[in-house]
Amino acid sequence: MYLLGLDLGSTVCKSSIFDVSGDIVCISREEFSSALSHPRRDWVEFDPNIFWHIVSRNLRNSIKAAHLSPKEIAGMSVSASGELFVPVSSNGNPVCKAIHWSDKRDAGYRKSLQIIKRFGTLRTYKITGYPFSAMPSLPKVLWLRQNRPNLFRKIGRLLLLEDFVNLRLTGNSVTDYSLAMTSQMFDITKKDWSDEILDEMKISREILPDVYPSGKPVGEVLSEASKDTGLARGTIVATGGLDQCCGALGIGVTSEGEAFNTTGTCEIVAAASDKPVLHERGLRSGIFCCPHVVENKYLLLGVLPSSGSTLKWFKETFGEVESREAERNGSDPYSLIVEKAADSQPGSGGIFMLPHFDGSGSGIAPAFNSESKGVFFGLTLSSRKSDIIRALLEGITFEARLYFEALEELGLKVRKVKAMGGGAKSKLWLQMKADIFGKKVVLPDVIEGSSLGAALLAGLSCGVYSSVKRATSEICKYQTILAPSRKRLMLYNEYYRLFKGMYPVCLPLFKSM
Amino acid sequence: MYLLGLDLGSTVCKSSIFDVSGDIVCISREEFSSALSHPRRDWVEFDPNIFWHIVSRNLRNSIKAAHLSPKEIAGMSVSASGELFVPVSSNGNPVCKAIHWSDKRDAGYRKSLQIIKRFGTLRTYKITGYPFSAMPSLPKVLWLRQNRPNLFRKIGRLLLLEDFVNLRLTGNSVTDYSLAMTSQMFDITKKDWSDEILDEMKISREILPDVYPSGKPVGEVLSEASKDTGLARGTIVATGGLDQCCGALGIGVTSEGEAFNTTGTCEIVAAASDKPVLHERGLRSGIFCCPHVVENKYLLLGVLPSSGSTLKWFKETFGEVESREAERNGSDPYSLIVEKAADSQPGSGGIFMLPHFDGSGSGIAPAFNSESKGVFFGLTLSSRKSDIIRALLEGITFEARLYFEALEELGLKVRKVKAMGGGAKSKLWLQMKADIFGKKVVLPDVIEGSSLGAALLAGLSCGVYSSVKRATSEICKYQTILAPSRKRLMLYNEYYRLFKGMYPVCLPLFKSM
Repeated sequence: MYLLGLDLGSTVCKSSIFDVSGDIVCISREEFSSALSHPRRDWVEFDPNIFWHIVSRNLRNSIKAAHLSPKEIAGMSVSASGELFVPVSSNGNPVCKAIHWSDKRDAGYRKSLQIIKRFGTLRTYKITGYPFSAMPSLPKVLWLRQNRPNLFRKIGRLLLLEDFVNLRLTGNSVTDYSLAMTSQMFDITKKDWSDEILDEMKISREILPDVYPSGKPVGEVLSEASKDTGLARGTIVATGGLDQCCGALGIGVTSEGEAFNTTGTCEIVAAASDKPVLHERGLRSGIFCCPHVVENKYLLLGVLPSSGSTLKWFKETFGEVESREAERNGSDPYSLIVEKAADSQPGSGGIFMLPHFDGSGSGIAPAFNSESKGVFFGLTLSSRKSDIIRALLEGITFEARLYFEALEELGLKVRKVKAMGGGAKSKLWLQMKADIFGKKVVLPDVIEGSSLGAALLAGLSCGVYSSVKRATSEICKYQTILAPSRKRLMLYNEYYRLFKGMYPVCLPLFKSM
Repeated sequence: MYLLGLDLGSTVCKSSIFDVSGDIVCISREEFSSALSHPRRDWVEFDPNIFWHIVSRNLRNSIKAAHLSPKEIAGMSVSASGELFVPVSSNGNPVCKAIHWSDKRDAGYRKSLQIIKRFGTLRTYKITGYPFSAMPSLPKVLWLRQNRPNLFRKIGRLLLLEDFVNLRLTGNSVTDYSLAMTSQMFDITKKDWSDEILDEMKISREILPDVYPSGKPVGEVLSEASKDTGLARGTIVATGGLDQCCGALGIGVTSEGEAFNTTGTCEIVAAASDKPVLHERGLRSGIFCCPHVVENKYLLLGVLPSSGSTLKWFKETFGEVESREAERNGSDPYSLIVEKAADSQPGSGGIFMLPHFDGSGSGIAPAFNSESKGVFFGLTLSSRKSDIIRALLEGITFEARLYFEALEELGLKVRKVKAMGGGAKSKLWLQMKADIFGKKVVLPDVIEGSSLGAALLAGLSCGVYSSVKRATSEICKYQTILAPSRKRLMLYNEYYRLFKGMYPVCLPLFKSM
């Protein structure tokens, strides 16, 4: 018997098939950046039809590659990035393109944010766990109603990415708590859409999907969807969750004391909590409080919008030599770039890098400041490419330490950190994380944690696993544990202090520019 | 009849032969970086014997390449970079390696600088015109006496680079006013070694060379030197001058109102003055006041230690693709890099660059702050290589504008700017200078202005020219005059204001790092 986890990231979807002991059978990846378009400056739109086309091909390819009968797949569920919502008509067809979470039209949703501010920033945070920013669905929904009233009237449902796939597969519009949270309309304590917010914003509950806990059956794969995706008719589709929460489950970050750090397109630091934590201090630091995909647990997250994307930027701007070399050898250009950092030393020869290439993130106030930018500080004629690359990695990792610090100030203890995402592929970077965080860093055996978490939720929904605890204790395996070096930790403590001083000092400059 | 100008830069010597109308016959270049060594961190030493070997080969090659009889060369003189002094014994042989101006041993000559501070920073400045720093000869002479007393006792003469070549060629130890100024022991108003400083520092006048005005005969080429260099025995060697002053003469910057901007290894802004200007404001801004090679005139200079060197750094760090392309096409990698800036816009897409890759220079206090470093500010995921290159060029050019501003605050009017150095090869950069300075930028026909100035001084000494005025009016030709675009000037005024705010904001960070 097998389980399928479909992970919908920022630009890549991955369909992974696991056996019941959590070993991966096959994984199929597909870029869906062709679904994204930039019709104007600061606008980012998303075509749900192109997306569905790619997702269904992706599912088909993975089932084909696994050389098994589709019937052997007992269930599947979706791990999805949040915020983005697809407005569909009552018959389930997209009304228009979806607005991407990174969209910054109308000067970053100025008017929408004013409305939310009027309702109360802290009040919104205490209900939704979502810190004030233009990222969640709510400001975009308000924009759509204000600026495209005719379209808005045609909306039957507003579906988050998971719900849209669930609808296509089963005919049912269902989301889960963790993804619902990214709408900024969900009461994470009551675990229901927030009447207070919906009333104030005059949004009808009717157009929102049903909300289930994660790992509950949504329905069965319909025959049309079966043709599209290669999944067998009748396959159980279960509620999945926000990719970060699925990832946490997949690597066993399910209860207080456990944490992870994902270095993907974004940089994420998250720790599990036994209760919602909704302090003003968390709002100031831009910490997200999200219902976990594990019942009655929460996940507190700090996010930097640009992490792997900054490395990608570096590769595209200054990595032509490494890219060519990688092409010749069939190796990975990112690895070639990252490994260059070994030629430098902790402290990167005096170079400090502020990794706000897409604005600031969580951590230090002001959080999510789109005025903040990337800075390379401390360059000299002796600075080498390896120093600059190391400064880039260190800058991102110092920033992640800020978030751990914020989480600990909110009362969460973090004992060890599980590493995920593309950045976890590099031993050098993992050791740097251990040395900078001053914590043990654990490398899970499955790097595709989000897919595994989704598969696990599917397994829970169809009775393959009796409980989360049982499932994770069997399934979550670890490769390596890296301990911090005391000597480097001492050094990095000093550099971290300096790094921390950079953002406040640069703020007035960002403001004037 | 021909004249030879020997230009001794930071790492390159150039022997140029001109006809009497100032047209270049041939130029021969030779790197002498093999004379430089780094025996320890922050130490930079200079081997006079290797240097002389390279210089004499350079002279030989140029005479050979010119296809003329050495006797046709009526005279020669030297344009030299300052500060570096060669300690020679009484028979003229080097006692030890010379200390390079960029040497920063003993934490940047801490103890020597204390002694000078005790004597008085402003007092020293008002005598010597040399702003407080570790660059000039004096702190190095003090270090040598303190730390190498046995060597110091063997010193017959302390010779600046010009004087060392003059001695080798003619047997006479003679320097000129402009070069003597870089020792920080010369009274630029009295035009003699400063008794006040020599007494206080207990340095004997005996070990210093004789000082003549520029363009006066030092002696004739000796037969041994003739064998080494290919110059005819008896060729007149005249006092030349500091490379910046020779350059100013070569492009006709000889009286008040005229200025130039050299973008070479360093960035230099200089304006001619009819009198010494020795205000406290000049000291604070790190402005040099130097006797000109034109009698009774002075040259006020602002300097940034790293300019072309930063471009070189960029080429070596991130210019592999351009370097390979240049090698394939036989083109200049620097041109390929600089021309990329055309793909960006004024303001470099929001990137600002603080060009202190070798510390700060003149302009804003604290001047010559070795704690200051290079910064790239305002990077985003949309920043392109062309934006970063443009930010590099703009940063250097904004910095040069700081120096013009400082000169103007000292009472000098600057009407137009003559452009020199490698940076003057690029039309794009020249236009950027015009747009940022808000002044007309003139491109002299001879880019090797320092060599021409030296040749002109040789011509004055042997009667080829009757006066500086006559010589320059005949010889100094101009190629192009670029006017600022009013639109771009307005834009750049705003960006300059932001640029100017960067250094003060970054200062506390530099201090803590």
